[in-house]
Amino acid sequence: MSWDEVGEMPCSVARSLAIVGDRWTLLILRNVFLRVRRFADLQTQLGIPRHVLSTRLKRLVDEDVLEKVAYQESPARYEYRLTEKGKDLYPVILSLVAWGDKWLDQGKGPPLLYRHKKCGHTFRPTLACSECGEPITARDVAVEMGPGMLAD
Amino acid sequence: MSWDEVGEMPCSVARSLAIVGDRWTLLILRNVFLRVRRFADLQTQLGIPRHVLSTRLKRLVDEDVLEKVAYQESPARYEYRLTEKGKDLYPVILSLVAWGDKWLDQGKGPPLLYRHKKCGHTFRPTLACSECGEPITARDVAVEMGPGMLAD
Repeated sequence: MSWDEVGEMPCSVARSLAIVGDRWTLLILRNVFLRVRRFADLQTQLGIPRHVLSTRLKRLVDEDVLEKVAYQESPARYEYRLTEKGKDLYPVILSLVAWGDKWLDQGKGPPLLYRHKKCGHTFRPTLACSECGEPITARDVAVEMGPGMLAD
Repeated sequence: MSWDEVGEMPCSVARSLAIVGDRWTLLILRNVFLRVRRFADLQTQLGIPRHVLSTRLKRLVDEDVLEKVAYQESPARYEYRLTEKGKDLYPVILSLVAWGDKWLDQGKGPPLLYRHKKCGHTFRPTLACSECGEPITARDVAVEMGPGMLAD
């Protein structure tokens, strides 16, 4: 099965991964969330080959995750900004952060701290229920067929 | 920069992606969370080449994300179970679900519904602050150097 076909499966993880299921893509997005938005800066910080970065950015623009915006004229210079769709990927990035911080910190503690501006505390990103607000683990969840499965 | 090197950068996303930053790997994990734990079942459901599945599973066992457990003797049959480290990837998977449900449902609604057993409601996976419990977006967060960055 090709990745294009996986993208057609009625599974939201498969569809999401068809767009962002690539290590470079997720690292690019992580950097854009950290406000590294320009091609040259992304290339330097990630040490990524130009053509790979270019391909990944084009895909993210085509999929409406990033938009390419001129921040300077003559010569025209562009940066990549997160769209609403792109900003909604923040929980994916922060969940990867939380997992890496917990399991892969080599005993040194987290490389970055995340402070919640509203409450003032550094926090661990936590998965919660939208309805009752309680933290969620796999054990707390029952999965049922949804309309998007039945429609296919 | 090779992926092995990226895995050494003091960045929790890079370290996490060095282990799970692969579309097949995340789809395998999604299926294991849905209790598809046996090689043949994973292969059938994902339509993944044997050697690719085998390589990815070995990596996940080596990294202590899955454990290979005999569920039957003579002939020995194995299944792959999530370790504690593996179970902690649930927010990554569910964040991908939430994004796909919102942005890639093709107008048909979510393929699967997730019900929170404790409160009884179907819910949207939500990123929350571990300290105050409020939902978090990128705009709410300030990033600071942590001990793991300074140590390197």
